[in-house]
Amino acid sequence: MTRTIKLAVIPGDGIGPEVIEQANRVLDAVLAESDVTLERTEFKLGAERFLATGDTLPAVEQAAIAEHDAILFGAVGGVPGDPRLKAANIERGLLLKLRFDFDHYANVRPCTLFPGVTSTLANPGNVDFLVVREGTEGPYAGNGGSLRTGTPHEVATEVSVNTAYGVERVVRYAFETAQARPRKKLTWVHKTNVLVHAGSIWQRVVAAVAAEYPEIAVDYMHVDAATIFMVQDPSRFDVIVTDNLFGDILTDLAGAIGGGIGLAASGNINPDGTFPSMFEPVHGSAPDIAGQQKADPTAAILSAAIMLDHLGLTTEASRVRDAVRADLAERGAAARSTAQIGDSVIAQLPAPAHAAI
Amino acid sequence: MTRTIKLAVIPGDGIGPEVIEQANRVLDAVLAESDVTLERTEFKLGAERFLATGDTLPAVEQAAIAEHDAILFGAVGGVPGDPRLKAANIERGLLLKLRFDFDHYANVRPCTLFPGVTSTLANPGNVDFLVVREGTEGPYAGNGGSLRTGTPHEVATEVSVNTAYGVERVVRYAFETAQARPRKKLTWVHKTNVLVHAGSIWQRVVAAVAAEYPEIAVDYMHVDAATIFMVQDPSRFDVIVTDNLFGDILTDLAGAIGGGIGLAASGNINPDGTFPSMFEPVHGSAPDIAGQQKADPTAAILSAAIMLDHLGLTTEASRVRDAVRADLAERGAAARSTAQIGDSVIAQLPAPAHAAI
Ligand SMILES: CC(C)[C@H](C(=O)O)[C@@H](O)C(=O)O
Ligand SMILES: CC(C)[C@H](C(=O)O)[C@@H](O)C(=O)O
Repeated sequence: MTRTIKLAVIPGDGIGPEVIEQANRVLDAVLAESDVTLERTEFKLGAERFLATGDTLPAVEQAAIAEHDAILFGAVGGVPGDPRLKAANIERGLLLKLRFDFDHYANVRPCTLFPGVTSTLANPGNVDFLVVREGTEGPYAGNGGSLRTGTPHEVATEVSVNTAYGVERVVRYAFETAQARPRKKLTWVHKTNVLVHAGSIWQRVVAAVAAEYPEIAVDYMHVDAATIFMVQDPSRFDVIVTDNLFGDILTDLAGAIGGGIGLAASGNINPDGTFPSMFEPVHGSAPDIAGQQKADPTAAILSAAIMLDHLGLTTEASRVRDAVRADLAERGAAARSTAQIGDSVIAQLPAPAHAAI
Repeated sequence: MTRTIKLAVIPGDGIGPEVIEQANRVLDAVLAESDVTLERTEFKLGAERFLATGDTLPAVEQAAIAEHDAILFGAVGGVPGDPRLKAANIERGLLLKLRFDFDHYANVRPCTLFPGVTSTLANPGNVDFLVVREGTEGPYAGNGGSLRTGTPHEVATEVSVNTAYGVERVVRYAFETAQARPRKKLTWVHKTNVLVHAGSIWQRVVAAVAAEYPEIAVDYMHVDAATIFMVQDPSRFDVIVTDNLFGDILTDLAGAIGGGIGLAASGNINPDGTFPSMFEPVHGSAPDIAGQQKADPTAAILSAAIMLDHLGLTTEASRVRDAVRADLAERGAAARSTAQIGDSVIAQLPAPAHAAI
């Protein structure tokens, strides 16, 4: 019995194609002896495509992507400050549009400091937590405007929109995630003392959902204090749940303390399965080092592992993570190319455990 | 010729009174042989006062505070989660009210890793930057609400309000600050790729003001990326200017990497002098260690130094900073009481330089 998985691949710009190439090689290798076949469709989207054709995310392509089981996403974005890209807003028009339209409400970003990896912290301790970032509302709602634009009397607004529906489902997802982990701890992060209305809905929803999960130890932290704990005592975190903007900020910081943004993976999850989920490294397109085989594909490879988990291929996901762990433990100071890191991860893949005869 | 400075002192809650006591002792010591007299009025405000009398910031007291030349502020806030404080919102009703009503639009927060101080970072490098945080608008505007509150259909909003008037004055202040520093570098931080309207007004204002300061090297960073640089290469920063919320988050992180929040000082500056500026440690009231002489008064003492600078007493400010620097350089691992640290700083105060006869 074979299973075919339809995978939409969006390599994107800059280092995106390079790192996605390695993630795809690792996927092929880990699935080689399995009964799973990946059927890939590549979508050329991003700044380069916009500059060539003026398209950001044509409706037919979006509809085609929606027909897939999962999306593997590299990175999008041109050279910072390129005036030709100003009108495009690739981030809002492509990346955030996919997250919002495909209802990726649980943006899952693990942070693990693997053995052998040097942290930017003097005493990192045992870093092994996971941020569940809300992905479809909050300050990212795109709900703002400006009045008297360009005059000394301009007023520009951004509205953070928070719904009981939206907050509850991501908080519930985070509790389920915490429940499945040994430490069973959940920290919710907001700024309730200043953003009183958004903070209040989060506070009430967390309290209500917490009542259903008596085994989970719940604590609260203001976002500013959370950055302090993240650099002074990150081992205290198990699962963090927070809003879209705070999650954006905290997960870049988490990436930095977890060995660098070149290792930070993510999944934009639609837990209801109404649209394909999307897996992407947290890093950007880094146009300055693009095409030079300098980028670390580990974040893309680990994002593919999150995808395997999401698709129910949990042993394959573990094998990829074990291979990455082995590669990182052996990694010396010598610089390796993007492809060499891919080679090494593939070489380290543990053999599949076959059923006993 | 003597000068009398009217100082409003708001010690506040928790460790506030303890650390302010030491700051006041240091002020007295550094001004002892000068022609400056401090005339202090103490205002008992904060959670404790609210619990005793129900008052947060009575109008008569606010008017009385306004009559002073400067405000020295400790910390406010009761035990987290105390249900009796829920209605009060001491933060919005007292601290933010003072910042907004007294038009403290430049919230200045230096971050220096003093010699002898251990950072949480493995390789901090030369940490010596200053954050100018907008203090009177942005997401802190208090402009939000909720609909169908408490139902599954609740919608809660928070509006970030950004005006050309408000952005321009703080950006200009930051350029002036950068101009007065040797490195002449300004980094502005926002999230222009997502918060497009607020980001756009900041971008245009920075570009316009930058044209008047050709010697200043200006760069831009997304707030998420800024957290990465802050823990990976903080020495790249000289002056940072950013909005109220991003500034809140970045300055707690800066405090953590700069030797801990017990050293982080701030000034809430009204550069126009229409109301008294306010000087406060960045840390909170820490009710868990209050009254035990465990709090480090250094942040409060350094805040008093910023106040001296603001009042034009720049040599006195330098003497306080030199004393703190000397104390920190000698500080061993042994725990000292709040008062002992105050004693040591006072003992280290360099003698005033008298005019040659
Ligand atoms: C590129 C940008 C829109 C995006 C975000 O802000 O979510 C990125 O920073 C991320 O964290 O995935
Ligand atoms: C107490 C709180 C309202 C305040 C803020 O958010 O500004 C504090 O975190 C600070 O940074 O001074």
